[in-house]
Amino acid sequence: MNKQTDTRWKITIEYDGAPYAGVQIQPDIDTVQGEIQKAIKGFTGQDITITVAGRTDAGVHAFAQIAHFDFLYLKPDGSPREITGHEICKAINAHLVPQPISIIHAEIVDDEFHARFGAKTKKYQYRIMSRPYNAAIHKGRVWWFKKPLNIEKMREGASYFIGQHDFTTFRDTECQAKNPVRTVDKFWIETSEMMNGQMIDFYVEGQSFLHHQVRNMVGTLTLIGEEKWQPEDIKTAFEARQRSAGGPTAPAEGLYLLSINYDK
Amino acid sequence: MNKQTDTRWKITIEYDGAPYAGVQIQPDIDTVQGEIQKAIKGFTGQDITITVAGRTDAGVHAFAQIAHFDFLYLKPDGSPREITGHEICKAINAHLVPQPISIIHAEIVDDEFHARFGAKTKKYQYRIMSRPYNAAIHKGRVWWFKKPLNIEKMREGASYFIGQHDFTTFRDTECQAKNPVRTVDKFWIETSEMMNGQMIDFYVEGQSFLHHQVRNMVGTLTLIGEEKWQPEDIKTAFEARQRSAGGPTAPAEGLYLLSINYDK
Repeated sequence: MNKQTDTRWKITIEYDGAPYAGVQIQPDIDTVQGEIQKAIKGFTGQDITITVAGRTDAGVHAFAQIAHFDFLYLKPDGSPREITGHEICKAINAHLVPQPISIIHAEIVDDEFHARFGAKTKKYQYRIMSRPYNAAIHKGRVWWFKKPLNIEKMREGASYFIGQHDFTTFRDTECQAKNPVRTVDKFWIETSEMMNGQMIDFYVEGQSFLHHQVRNMVGTLTLIGEEKWQPEDIKTAFEARQRSAGGPTAPAEGLYLLSINYDK
Repeated sequence: MNKQTDTRWKITIEYDGAPYAGVQIQPDIDTVQGEIQKAIKGFTGQDITITVAGRTDAGVHAFAQIAHFDFLYLKPDGSPREITGHEICKAINAHLVPQPISIIHAEIVDDEFHARFGAKTKKYQYRIMSRPYNAAIHKGRVWWFKKPLNIEKMREGASYFIGQHDFTTFRDTECQAKNPVRTVDKFWIETSEMMNGQMIDFYVEGQSFLHHQVRNMVGTLTLIGEEKWQPEDIKTAFEARQRSAGGPTAPAEGLYLLSINYDK
């Protein structure tokens, strides 16, 4: 970053994860980061790398992913040009059409701001549509779960995830994090009257999560919802400290990154 | 209907309207009715016509459209065979893959039951996403409205639609109904905290609606939301009794048929 000229921008991104091999750029594959960088190049002519806060997997959605990038907007004669956050959003979005990605906020931040390392807490939503018949309107946006689920038992189970734990049982075997200890601040479950209680929303908040942690926690809760496990079996699973002691990984299509919070 | 052998079934249908030229069957075009009849033929081998309650337009969605049809399930030897509602749903849905249509309930009804003529009230939802930047996750499922809308003024405007009125101003000029008088029982507006108040849901209930009536009422309310009209201008628009005195037609993609009620 050239401190004398570049400005650091923080952007908020909404996307439908279905068409992408995740957020992080990879050669020859469609990714959210790749599409946004192409769009930024489209309007600035510059090759700019964005730093994305939450590395969501293939198929995972976001209502408010955060990224930052450094950028100096230039006039044709090479002199700097002012641009507002609203103009940045509109310009990137114009180059994103018809991708299901939308830049919904852009603001200038301090040069010290870092989307990834500065993140204090993250909030995720996981949606299960629990009914015998497949989703039509919510197709690709929920986990279609054919069997009935006992919500109260799942709520009891979810309470065992709250607090600081070694989450080895609930992280992907290929997770790269050195430390498997994480703290879940909040974990609650809501159902919607509109969908006759068939739509079950899980909400999880914490400082950070291990690879597949949210999906593995939700997958394990479905075992409790089906009454194959008792809520307190989560304790035994934690103690085993091995992935095979946990429940299945819930599919990506039900997961939404809702928000990322930073210190002021 | 062969009263001695056929059974009348009532089915509840959820669909994403985007890929279809409406619900009603038309030659050489994809329609919801057409796809369901193909699926019924796929599992029964029979050409069965379904009667659909609400004639939703191209692009309009439904959480609970209702239809009926008469049907006798036969064994290979030609003798009648029992089938449950759950089996009917599963069998039709299996033949609907990968269409975004799902039969979510099926039950045997009295031979006098008529999905269309027996409907007592209908409930619709209309979704506007009001923000400067386009929808990503809700793309194709909401009306993306770029300008801010004054919710309280729209609520006041909506109250003028409640009750019995001549809706000539708010029906399509090609509407075939003989009588333009309709009664709106309820009309209310909700916003969602989740989407920072950007998602605006309009709910309308009544016995029946004229062609484009819901979309024209919502389109007119946006004029009030933008403060181009005052809420009481709805009264003047009613009195004009001509379509040109009303506001624009809200696009199909934001409209959902929520439910249809019948007498017990």
